[in-house]
Amino acid sequence: MAITVDRENPIPAYIQIRNQLREQILRGDLPGGTRLLPERKMAEKLGVSRTTVVSAYDDLAAEGLVEARVGRGTLVAAPPPGLTYGGPGVRPLAWTAHTTNLAKRLQEEKPAGLKALADLCNRADLAQLCNGVPDTSLLPLDRIRQAGEAVLRESPVAAVSFGPKQGVPALREAIASRLARSGIEADADRIAVINGAQQGFDLLVRLLTEPGDTVVVESPTYLGAIDTFQAEGLRVIGIPMDRDGMDVDQAEFMVARYRPRFIYTVPTFQNPTGMTMSLDRREKLLGLARRYQVPIIEDDPFSDLYFDEPPPPRLKALDGSGHVLYLGTVSKVLASGLRVGWLVAPQPVAEAAARLKALSDSQPASLSQHLVLELMARGWLDGHVDTVRAVYASRCRAMDAALRRHLPRQARWTPPGGGMSMWLELPQQVVAQELLDAAAPRGVVFLPGHYLYPGGGPSNTCRLNFSVPDEPEIQRGIEALGSAMRQVMRRRTQAPAERVIQGPIA
Amino acid sequence: MAITVDRENPIPAYIQIRNQLREQILRGDLPGGTRLLPERKMAEKLGVSRTTVVSAYDDLAAEGLVEARVGRGTLVAAPPPGLTYGGPGVRPLAWTAHTTNLAKRLQEEKPAGLKALADLCNRADLAQLCNGVPDTSLLPLDRIRQAGEAVLRESPVAAVSFGPKQGVPALREAIASRLARSGIEADADRIAVINGAQQGFDLLVRLLTEPGDTVVVESPTYLGAIDTFQAEGLRVIGIPMDRDGMDVDQAEFMVARYRPRFIYTVPTFQNPTGMTMSLDRREKLLGLARRYQVPIIEDDPFSDLYFDEPPPPRLKALDGSGHVLYLGTVSKVLASGLRVGWLVAPQPVAEAAARLKALSDSQPASLSQHLVLELMARGWLDGHVDTVRAVYASRCRAMDAALRRHLPRQARWTPPGGGMSMWLELPQQVVAQELLDAAAPRGVVFLPGHYLYPGGGPSNTCRLNFSVPDEPEIQRGIEALGSAMRQVMRRRTQAPAERVIQGPIA
Repeated sequence: MAITVDRENPIPAYIQIRNQLREQILRGDLPGGTRLLPERKMAEKLGVSRTTVVSAYDDLAAEGLVEARVGRGTLVAAPPPGLTYGGPGVRPLAWTAHTTNLAKRLQEEKPAGLKALADLCNRADLAQLCNGVPDTSLLPLDRIRQAGEAVLRESPVAAVSFGPKQGVPALREAIASRLARSGIEADADRIAVINGAQQGFDLLVRLLTEPGDTVVVESPTYLGAIDTFQAEGLRVIGIPMDRDGMDVDQAEFMVARYRPRFIYTVPTFQNPTGMTMSLDRREKLLGLARRYQVPIIEDDPFSDLYFDEPPPPRLKALDGSGHVLYLGTVSKVLASGLRVGWLVAPQPVAEAAARLKALSDSQPASLSQHLVLELMARGWLDGHVDTVRAVYASRCRAMDAALRRHLPRQARWTPPGGGMSMWLELPQQVVAQELLDAAAPRGVVFLPGHYLYPGGGPSNTCRLNFSVPDEPEIQRGIEALGSAMRQVMRRRTQAPAERVIQGPIA
Repeated sequence: MAITVDRENPIPAYIQIRNQLREQILRGDLPGGTRLLPERKMAEKLGVSRTTVVSAYDDLAAEGLVEARVGRGTLVAAPPPGLTYGGPGVRPLAWTAHTTNLAKRLQEEKPAGLKALADLCNRADLAQLCNGVPDTSLLPLDRIRQAGEAVLRESPVAAVSFGPKQGVPALREAIASRLARSGIEADADRIAVINGAQQGFDLLVRLLTEPGDTVVVESPTYLGAIDTFQAEGLRVIGIPMDRDGMDVDQAEFMVARYRPRFIYTVPTFQNPTGMTMSLDRREKLLGLARRYQVPIIEDDPFSDLYFDEPPPPRLKALDGSGHVLYLGTVSKVLASGLRVGWLVAPQPVAEAAARLKALSDSQPASLSQHLVLELMARGWLDGHVDTVRAVYASRCRAMDAALRRHLPRQARWTPPGGGMSMWLELPQQVVAQELLDAAAPRGVVFLPGHYLYPGGGPSNTCRLNFSVPDEPEIQRGIEALGSAMRQVMRRRTQAPAERVIQGPIA
């Protein structure tokens, strides 16, 4: 019964005493029948007046938590059996009965392997081939500083105050110009600035789907998209890919059968595979969308990060019939903490998305918007993109060379034409999780691929990221990977494992 | 048939031609039977090869949009009647069939009066008594600049990169200290940084309600909350207020009857009324929450803006049983474009909210978080709050004095003890919208109150904001208001109007 009164606390002492006692009774620390200190003694102990303690005890008695017995003092009451709503007792709220299906899905445990991986991905002693983020050591810090200072000097009020809910107009104009360069004609007022592409997933799911609906994605695909879609109660069907991107014939079969609410695709330098959908496939996919009247969400964070030649036109640039909802962002080309992305959509969706965005969190943070605008206006975003493209290209080549040198010849990969990651198919008998377990002690960490297939996939794939590690780290990491792989293969030769085969439906 | 080919555009010419023709056909600009230019002529006109035009026409023919007739050339096809999913034709997507109930509710038109008001609220020639935002002319721009420069100098990488999804740890610690000063004991890891309180509404609604559920609010209340709740399909029941805040007996009646999913309250210097819930009422409301096991959302943007004496303890500080979900923000005490607020909730809700926040938009913008942290750490946020408190107090007194001087004695108001707004009850026969129509030409704009009652309310109330206008503007505005009111009353004496009476249920 450790009760304290804090005189600095603006809450009256009797309420402090009452609340602490109430909490202890509700927690079961003071079981039914426990005798509270007599009022006078409690008052002395706490250095308060007797009236203060009487008020606290009275309140608890009124709530049915204690009862005064003649000759025995104040006792904690036994919890009333079958207590119902509106009854006299006090209980902590049973939140599980109060939360929605969405909340319950959010409370589901993540796979243990993924949690363990998150720790590995933060260890400085390992070669980090697992993080799909920009290399912060390449950031043009002086320019960011100069641009930020210019914003704070020239438009400090706008930088911290409310602006138009759709986003700062000059930023929308700058985004429209960038889009025009890639063949997307979008009016600035058809563009909504949002908190990165991730907010786009959330807004579009809420505008286009109800729980239980089906959506189609590439398999494997971006984990952040799978997580959102599944949390919102969607059935996620994965379509296999080849070197030309999503298998559109397979997609057509699934679209005809399941009538999905949308097709989600990362057509260019896809995360995780690095693959790019060919122009021919893009045309076929758009044709499919038109024939079946199904919207396409084009998630396009990587197109600017091409190494040798530009990728095929964006789906949105090829979309003459308004079936494509386009998501762009600075998260991969500049920095992910700014939370500046954009949605380009046909008018009814753009309008509903802007309103939902406004109700969800009013508007994107002004300071981030102005900083990105300043970097765009000075040409510094383009300059930075040129820098990282060259660095990532070189790292990608270094990884390719290291893989050739250190990996057994049964392993397969295709160096991508841009982006941040490479997809590795392990020899059939090698399970990626087992490989990771052997590789981490040798000093390298990567992402086992099976988490990235909606509903599960083959166990012998993994994603290797080359955007964050420098070339020596890549070489060290791939060498360790090769050594771990040979160990696992030796082990496997003695006891071959089952292989999980990916079915067409997640 | 104005077709253009843009050679700078990365999209192949045949696709550009095809897409423009497709769009014109779908729009109806080229009706069925229209003859397209012969391939050779089109090629000459556009300066492309004949093959390019042939490819475009072939694609359109494959889509069923044109047909080649021997001897007649290429004609636009008539749209196939009763075209169905999977058919051969190409149509723009019928988005209305594709959007959810939420999207449809978002597309509902706002009241025309509210749209007209938005324009009035931006006019520099009017005394602005309608904006519930901080006065940006009071912003400590030098300090914001210095703090921003310090962030960009000392932690530029963290300022633009991903951080913990729940928010920057040092900021959560700083928020925990602020909360402790007001008697709220909250572990930093029980605090989620969110994009302002508005995002809290959205997250909590999604975690605690399904469309069709009922919630209870004060009546009148904050428009941003009503909008979110109604868009998400909730039935919103308003509880009348008096000078001690929400009528808790009324609330109990409604809670017992409708079993709402939560009670939303702005207990301190409420927007719009400026009223503050008494300590006694707070205790009663918490007792109600406990007896009926209904959560309380405490929206607390204004508590720090008290004029003479601090308000009663926050509900959260009085909450010993974990029924209160607390929302704080810098939007009203500092600036609204930063999008930095916080949610303090019991563990299961806090955890689900953090996960939903992460899926919704990854994390709050890092730069905003670091700037707010820097301002808090240097004591500059507190310093600024002291400044604006004094200024708003003085503006509030000036408004009160002006109201006494210029308003007919049938009008009623109660100067609040803090916050940004005052609530005016007009003489019964005066309709606030009519008053606004008469007042705007005289140079003043305010918010008619009936928008702020969920489901409608009395027509003779209005909100007067004193946070943005300076004292001369307040005096000018109130004088104009008084003159407009006398005009309306003279008119009304000749033809008395019906008065809409607010029922207990919205």
